Amino acid sequence: MTESIQRARATTASYSITMRIHAGTDPAVIGALAVKVADGGGITTALDIVDSHPDRLVIDLTCSASDADHANEIVDAVESLDGVRVHKVSDRVFLLHLGGKISVESKVPLKTRQDLAMAYTPGVGRVSQALADHPEDVSRLTIKGNSVAVVTDGTAVLGLGNIGPQAALPVMEGKAALFKRFADIDAWPICLDTTDIDEIVRTVELIAPGFGGINLEDISAPRCFEIEARLRERLSIPVFHDDQHGTAIVVLAALKNALRCVDKKLTEASIIVSGGGAAGSAIVQLLLAAGAVDVTVYDRPGLLNKDDETLTPAWRALAEKTNPRGLTGTLRDGLQGADVFIGVSAPNILKPEWIEEMAPERIVFALANPDPEVDIYEATQHATVIASGRSDYPNQINNVLAFPGVFRGLLDARATDVTTEMLIKAADAIASVVTDEQLNPNYIIPSVFHPDMSKTVARAIVDCVPKAPAPSIPMTGAGS
Amino acid sequence: MTESIQRARATTASYSITMRIHAGTDPAVIGALAVKVADGGGITTALDIVDSHPDRLVIDLTCSASDADHANEIVDAVESLDGVRVHKVSDRVFLLHLGGKISVESKVPLKTRQDLAMAYTPGVGRVSQALADHPEDVSRLTIKGNSVAVVTDGTAVLGLGNIGPQAALPVMEGKAALFKRFADIDAWPICLDTTDIDEIVRTVELIAPGFGGINLEDISAPRCFEIEARLRERLSIPVFHDDQHGTAIVVLAALKNALRCVDKKLTEASIIVSGGGAAGSAIVQLLLAAGAVDVTVYDRPGLLNKDDETLTPAWRALAEKTNPRGLTGTLRDGLQGADVFIGVSAPNILKPEWIEEMAPERIVFALANPDPEVDIYEATQHATVIASGRSDYPNQINNVLAFPGVFRGLLDARATDVTTEMLIKAADAIASVVTDEQLNPNYIIPSVFHPDMSKTVARAIVDCVPKAPAPSIPMTGAGS
Repeated sequence: MTESIQRARATTASYSITMRIHAGTDPAVIGALAVKVADGGGITTALDIVDSHPDRLVIDLTCSASDADHANEIVDAVESLDGVRVHKVSDRVFLLHLGGKISVESKVPLKTRQDLAMAYTPGVGRVSQALADHPEDVSRLTIKGNSVAVVTDGTAVLGLGNIGPQAALPVMEGKAALFKRFADIDAWPICLDTTDIDEIVRTVELIAPGFGGINLEDISAPRCFEIEARLRERLSIPVFHDDQHGTAIVVLAALKNALRCVDKKLTEASIIVSGGGAAGSAIVQLLLAAGAVDVTVYDRPGLLNKDDETLTPAWRALAEKTNPRGLTGTLRDGLQGADVFIGVSAPNILKPEWIEEMAPERIVFALANPDPEVDIYEATQHATVIASGRSDYPNQINNVLAFPGVFRGLLDARATDVTTEMLIKAADAIASVVTDEQLNPNYIIPSVFHPDMSKTVARAIVDCVPKAPAPSIPMTGAGS
Repeated sequence: MTESIQRARATTASYSITMRIHAGTDPAVIGALAVKVADGGGITTALDIVDSHPDRLVIDLTCSASDADHANEIVDAVESLDGVRVHKVSDRVFLLHLGGKISVESKVPLKTRQDLAMAYTPGVGRVSQALADHPEDVSRLTIKGNSVAVVTDGTAVLGLGNIGPQAALPVMEGKAALFKRFADIDAWPICLDTTDIDEIVRTVELIAPGFGGINLEDISAPRCFEIEARLRERLSIPVFHDDQHGTAIVVLAALKNALRCVDKKLTEASIIVSGGGAAGSAIVQLLLAAGAVDVTVYDRPGLLNKDDETLTPAWRALAEKTNPRGLTGTLRDGLQGADVFIGVSAPNILKPEWIEEMAPERIVFALANPDPEVDIYEATQHATVIASGRSDYPNQINNVLAFPGVFRGLLDARATDVTTEMLIKAADAIASVVTDEQLNPNYIIPSVFHPDMSKTVARAIVDCVPKAPAPSIPMTGAGS
């Protein structure tokens, strides 16, 4: 795979297909197939001969493409070969989703009557009675100690917008799977059939007894701010809107390391944030809490300025805390002499050449998904440190670095709320995983698969929480 | 274990303890320990020498007792042995509950970036978009097709009453574990922090998008009737209150086989049901739907009679449909000449000698838990067929025989509601598992571990539902 092919047509596992191919028995056909796929810009990831007849071979060829049209082109190219017929094309992403991506398993044996008598009636009654007498022990003797509700109303799902609670379910299942994979947390999707703030708040409040934490997900701004704030006030378990705070933690971690690379200070850096929605607001607040001073936000009305009477309440709240130099105008105006650009907004709103107008040793985080604010490859020609949401470039800003460890720590500490101190400490923990020796403009943030990641973040969170009291219900002694 | 010991003090795995014992090295000590436990009425289920020193043995002895006091007595008896010290006593039921009984697992690999790109962003976005376009396929591509919410408000938990949603959680987890064990269903507990009917209905309605079925559990009567009825009207997924219908199905199945044993007909049998609560109401309605005619209900006001002006609305509704002979008076009055007694009420309300006043070849189901309406051992002296909720006697009426298969069938058929036909067919299916050759008064109902059970019930349910339409989103073809 040459870079030119990759740049021309970035393939992705998310458009991965498996072709069931019938071909003649000419041994050259295997090579010819692989060449056709490569010439068409596809990446062959597997090729199996699944059956062999005297007159034909049956071959499963799996390859990734850049999108659906590209996949169809590859199929056509393969079929253009003499004697080759594509019998069936399977879409691997859809196959993977058949039947859902998560399951509930029993952690206890249920093979004998004795097992049933301990895990269910009558034995379970003793545990329930003990918890009725000692409610403070519920996290210890139930899944509440390790469970998180992944709550959405489906109003701001990925880049797809308001697709509703059922269509959001695959994303929430994926999130639950990540919770297990990266932090051994039992998370369950709760997809709500309402977009009413009062109803969402009340519903989450009512289902909270069974969960140790609430992860709000893909709820549109500005509704998400009020929902989170009200739930935090009412619930005695932590509430965390990942699109806000997960993103903010990873951005702060990456920015700290990016600034280390260029030998600048957060307290002195001039920072432009493009996008004053859920992620942007949280990023701004966390940057300020961490010591940043010169932060200015850009959104549809231009550079947000507290003297602008036309701003919505959410934008006004941001403008009150930011833009100390009273800037006005366009994004380009804001970029003049800035040290840092952080985009959590929309594709292609930053012209590559504008980057030249920033201060020397500039930092560009273009995080809009799936298409960033500026073409990442072009941005590398103009900025010193670049980060994006993409996995096919260095420095991927991915919430998976933060939320599993954050909730691991919250659950381990039996935390009752989420504090700004926790967010800052979590960012420090992520940043600290990159050692001085490892740090360079192409490695400011660890891989999501870094083995220490969630444990390191969890420890940082636990350190922010006073130690929980000892349990009330003894495991020893025959009585309950 | 002699029967006399068992009768004197029925031990149960739900009071199972493990003693860590330090003893001298005299080889006779092992035998002495076992004798002490047996003399004290305990049942030794495991004895391991976990460590051996020149001067002492370390022994783990696990035994079951009848209750907490009994367990303490056994510990004292063991400690009375010369040179024996009980170092620590662990309560196996509480140990089993540490950290909860269920977990969420990922069904998809998450080892590489490619895995993440297919199960999460960006690949998952294609599935969500496809579901936004084709909502009818959500059960196929998400956990909705295999998931059940186990919903409670904690108002009627086992025999414990209103212990609240958090103390109910161990029971709901146990139920979820049984769903997986017996029907491969992914069930998740939803414990609601309200007892308000409107709020319960609305909350379940709002969380329904992520689930394929709702299992209502341990919600007190008569609230459970309205909650179920309103949810059935509003939701397009099946709603099943197991305490009602699960019990009713198994009772009907057992009664059919009991009547086969004594060669009587359901349509002609005179049946007294003690207890007009959730289970009793559902049993009565299912018996009537299945063809029973002479059914009379007994509860606190006496034999429920439609001419009694003092009845609550729920009892009145029952009285309207039952008691065709217009009986009045006590339970004993109702039992005169009756063929069948079904108790879902309270311990020890049926005097064994009253059974003699029933018709010959009488049937007694004493289902109150954990202590039945009549001592089962004494009842065997007076009735031909006896069933109870207990696992230590023949003919255990256990909902586990019904609910896993019922929901398996509902999910497989993509059923949108639960019909009376389904309940009757499910009962027939359970009854039919006992062949004519197997049938006798001690075997009217299969074991919960019968391997065909849930599949047989599921098939009966599926047969009641019109076949679901073919899926809309193709798995073949590169595009979505």
